[in-house]
Amino acid sequence: MKLSQGFWQTYKEVPADAEIPSHQLMLRAGLIHKSGSGLYNYLPMGLRSIRKVENIIREELDKIGCFEVTMSVVTPGELWQETGRWDKMGDLMLRFKDKKEADLCLSPTNEEAVTDIFRKTVKSYKNLPVNLYQINTKFRDEIRPRFGLMRGREFTMKDAYSFHMDKACLDRGYQAMYDAYVAIFNRMGLEFIPVVADGGAMASSDAKTHEFQVVANAGEDLIIYAPEVGYAANIEKAQTKRIALEFDSNLSSQAEISTPGKTTIEEVCLFLNKPQHQSLKSLIYASTTGNETKLVMAILLGDDSLNEIKFQAALKCDHLAAATDEQMAKAKLCKGFIGPVGLIQEISIYLDESINLESSYVVGANKKDFHLQGFCPKRDLKQILTADLRLSRSGDLTLDGKATVVEKRGIEVGHVFQLGDHYTKKMKVGILDQTGKLVTPLMGCYGIGVTRVVAAAIEQNHDQNGIVWPKAIAPYQIYFATIVKTDEYGQMADEIYSELLKAGLEVVYDDRNVGPGNKFKDSDLLGLPLRVVLGERDFSATGELEIIVRKTGESKKVNRENLIATLKTLI
Amino acid sequence: MKLSQGFWQTYKEVPADAEIPSHQLMLRAGLIHKSGSGLYNYLPMGLRSIRKVENIIREELDKIGCFEVTMSVVTPGELWQETGRWDKMGDLMLRFKDKKEADLCLSPTNEEAVTDIFRKTVKSYKNLPVNLYQINTKFRDEIRPRFGLMRGREFTMKDAYSFHMDKACLDRGYQAMYDAYVAIFNRMGLEFIPVVADGGAMASSDAKTHEFQVVANAGEDLIIYAPEVGYAANIEKAQTKRIALEFDSNLSSQAEISTPGKTTIEEVCLFLNKPQHQSLKSLIYASTTGNETKLVMAILLGDDSLNEIKFQAALKCDHLAAATDEQMAKAKLCKGFIGPVGLIQEISIYLDESINLESSYVVGANKKDFHLQGFCPKRDLKQILTADLRLSRSGDLTLDGKATVVEKRGIEVGHVFQLGDHYTKKMKVGILDQTGKLVTPLMGCYGIGVTRVVAAAIEQNHDQNGIVWPKAIAPYQIYFATIVKTDEYGQMADEIYSELLKAGLEVVYDDRNVGPGNKFKDSDLLGLPLRVVLGERDFSATGELEIIVRKTGESKKVNRENLIATLKTLI
Repeated sequence: MKLSQGFWQTYKEVPADAEIPSHQLMLRAGLIHKSGSGLYNYLPMGLRSIRKVENIIREELDKIGCFEVTMSVVTPGELWQETGRWDKMGDLMLRFKDKKEADLCLSPTNEEAVTDIFRKTVKSYKNLPVNLYQINTKFRDEIRPRFGLMRGREFTMKDAYSFHMDKACLDRGYQAMYDAYVAIFNRMGLEFIPVVADGGAMASSDAKTHEFQVVANAGEDLIIYAPEVGYAANIEKAQTKRIALEFDSNLSSQAEISTPGKTTIEEVCLFLNKPQHQSLKSLIYASTTGNETKLVMAILLGDDSLNEIKFQAALKCDHLAAATDEQMAKAKLCKGFIGPVGLIQEISIYLDESINLESSYVVGANKKDFHLQGFCPKRDLKQILTADLRLSRSGDLTLDGKATVVEKRGIEVGHVFQLGDHYTKKMKVGILDQTGKLVTPLMGCYGIGVTRVVAAAIEQNHDQNGIVWPKAIAPYQIYFATIVKTDEYGQMADEIYSELLKAGLEVVYDDRNVGPGNKFKDSDLLGLPLRVVLGERDFSATGELEIIVRKTGESKKVNRENLIATLKTLI
Repeated sequence: MKLSQGFWQTYKEVPADAEIPSHQLMLRAGLIHKSGSGLYNYLPMGLRSIRKVENIIREELDKIGCFEVTMSVVTPGELWQETGRWDKMGDLMLRFKDKKEADLCLSPTNEEAVTDIFRKTVKSYKNLPVNLYQINTKFRDEIRPRFGLMRGREFTMKDAYSFHMDKACLDRGYQAMYDAYVAIFNRMGLEFIPVVADGGAMASSDAKTHEFQVVANAGEDLIIYAPEVGYAANIEKAQTKRIALEFDSNLSSQAEISTPGKTTIEEVCLFLNKPQHQSLKSLIYASTTGNETKLVMAILLGDDSLNEIKFQAALKCDHLAAATDEQMAKAKLCKGFIGPVGLIQEISIYLDESINLESSYVVGANKKDFHLQGFCPKRDLKQILTADLRLSRSGDLTLDGKATVVEKRGIEVGHVFQLGDHYTKKMKVGILDQTGKLVTPLMGCYGIGVTRVVAAAIEQNHDQNGIVWPKAIAPYQIYFATIVKTDEYGQMADEIYSELLKAGLEVVYDDRNVGPGNKFKDSDLLGLPLRVVLGERDFSATGELEIIVRKTGESKKVNRENLIATLKTLI
């Protein structure tokens, strides 16, 4: 593209709501414009990058025999009512009525729609397994859209859905998609980690699910990671153990001690001169199942934090939330001094597995300004319920003890998930098996946030001057600028541009009538992998052009004859 | 694609609401599924065809220097309020509110959005002209969606918008798009006619607009066409003249005659034994401008019909509708006997230009069961207002009298339109011209109904057995079937399939375990351009395969060695 005739504009300023580098850089480099809250227009440069992401995905999925379809963006309420999700999806799903007062929504996901397609098409085991995908517009009515394409309301997603006769087949299909995702993100040149994720309450116990996380500081997800043993999990799901701790084995009887105003573990342990892991943290939650809500207590080592998702899984409840002040007051629980002893109402107590049940701990005394020393769970509790409840963190060991984990921030760009028969059952899908029996097929679903990938790639690959595109998804490969204004050099630059195009290279040709400083600033901001400069001084002296690698800053001089060959080796 | 592992199902029955061939065939051939009223999922075969249409459009538009963007499907109400279209768009535009009660809509078109992008990017004449296009999902809340992809609610459209400093530049850009459209539809192999269209009330008098109509019986548009002189216009806009008529020059005075129960021109003229063009048809309309509504009369030759669009243009009113019974009764007008003489209230009378003003006609007497003979417009009317008001029809002459026109049915698949400064003015877009003066740029807009093109192509190209795809937009080029069940032939067929793929041919390989009858039926229904059959009888006798051209039924025998070369010449 010749910039003098192009449609591209960079910006110096960005709006205050652009908080993270990718959002700022995409706006400044003229890749996107905001069209409304959480709504973006993709400009020519941005769209080229999005299309490259789409094509890589398409090629890798076609390779493993997936079929591309396109489902309507607007879907009728009836479809969602079949599975009960019309009511359950929450208000992220934008619902509305058409002229005839029929319920419609903007699809945030398409399990129902694809299952409907499947049941209209496939009747026999002979046609299974099958994997259908689409690359399409999705909408989620985020209350606080932010971070540009990272968490917009309208976005492009690849969603795939597979159908299988049995779990073994689902496992094979799942693994094929997992491998395709690895190939996809590798081709894009991203540093990513596939992590074990939480399947949610709906997933059966043997359902697999992984997230593909692009490592980046602005990531909203926390990953627990031990690369040397290949362990990686979303913190929601991570299982690790603490390094060996020295517990307090002095099992003297309980004693109340005055701890006036010491409401945190830090304060109490400092005051008592004890390591925090010799105290216990008692947390009160409200657990709801059906219409019944009851208070429950989670107990952790003093320096640990609760993983609410694990706690909810242990409780097998529908809903879990920290107890409100009102609920606490009703149970006469005194914030900052809560403990497992002397509760005035029955509260189920769950202890984290890291707690040595036979040791002695400081706990809250359930009395303002008092704690209890010498609490021994095994001795002092009527019933012992344990579970893995703590949040993993840097410094923990993997369960096999072989490696120490670290924390990394990640941006979730992909997700693979075994759905099982959840949707096929509710939508009454029956497939004839080899014996002529009707069987409910199993499903997997597999998403990639196409527009989010572009943002994540920039989040991971930028510097203070702008974007540093991974080659495979850069809008163009080469930024070619001439910084001479004479007609002679202008004509030569035009010729070189033609030669580069003819060689099949993707080139932005900066022939604008602006100074070198502006050209180089724009070039760095846009961040194409290679910059080629035709400068009078160099060329008249040595007949050479300069190639600069955006990522490393490395510079190479090359004469015109070798330009194309050299560029091809660098791309 | 190997059908045994494919995702494809044909259907014998189609739902009753599929009225036209393209809709029936797209469902039966497994190209689309209905997901809701006016909502369709595109299945793998259908999507391949849609993608081919998209790619042809993209290539031709890129060739003339257009830039691809993608605008958000959901657009905020504010944008539409800037031009007043939030209120004016009517209820085809689906509006809704988000969680924060902000106005949003599903974009049915994107003039405002693209003008917003333009004004954020371009400030100087140096960057003009520019043409931005997108291929994106659109939504129109049709009250009666029908004909499948022809008039669905959700559909894929290519919409392009150009910006220019002056009318001469707009004219050049318009012509470039017109030519690109001709190239696009030619490449698709469609029989089409670019027709002069009506620009609507908004268009300025020198604004050009053409529709691209695919000729097909099921078309909703009527085209007036004289190919030998290159004249084609939508009937709404067509201007033709009648062949020479013999008028009644007997200017005797008016005479009332009893015509009991004769309320139609046919009945009256038969009764009086006169040709219909020697009578006049008087039609009463209510014309509204601002808050004022008044009755007006259109008079046409007895055998002509009114073109309401022309009448409205002549009246320059905001709104025009046939007078209601109530309005007629109030003016004491008697249906079936209305005429220009003896009106009890003042009604402006417009005469069609085909009427010879100095001849004598039969007209209604404004009195039940009576007509008037001997009415001469020039003699008997106080004021003579004439305009081109009639609907053109087959048998008319072009205005220059050189050719006779015919009527054709067409499906509008494209539209090019000069918008002028309508949007840029309302959205306060200013561009600096060479002298540093702020100028309001002019716009053109250019649409192609991508999914509609596929339906129109099928509407134009099918027979009783199924679709007959034009080569360039067929889902695949070749249907390859083996009709032998032995392992030996099965293996040979597998090999041939691999060879066809290796040769870069697009092949559906029907290796399903079904009889030849079913295979051939499916093959005809799907309608790929070529069918290749490996049959035992032929092959064992002569070593030949059969190639059948779907369109002509022509059959060719070819040996395996020459298969690929022969196929390549046929494609």
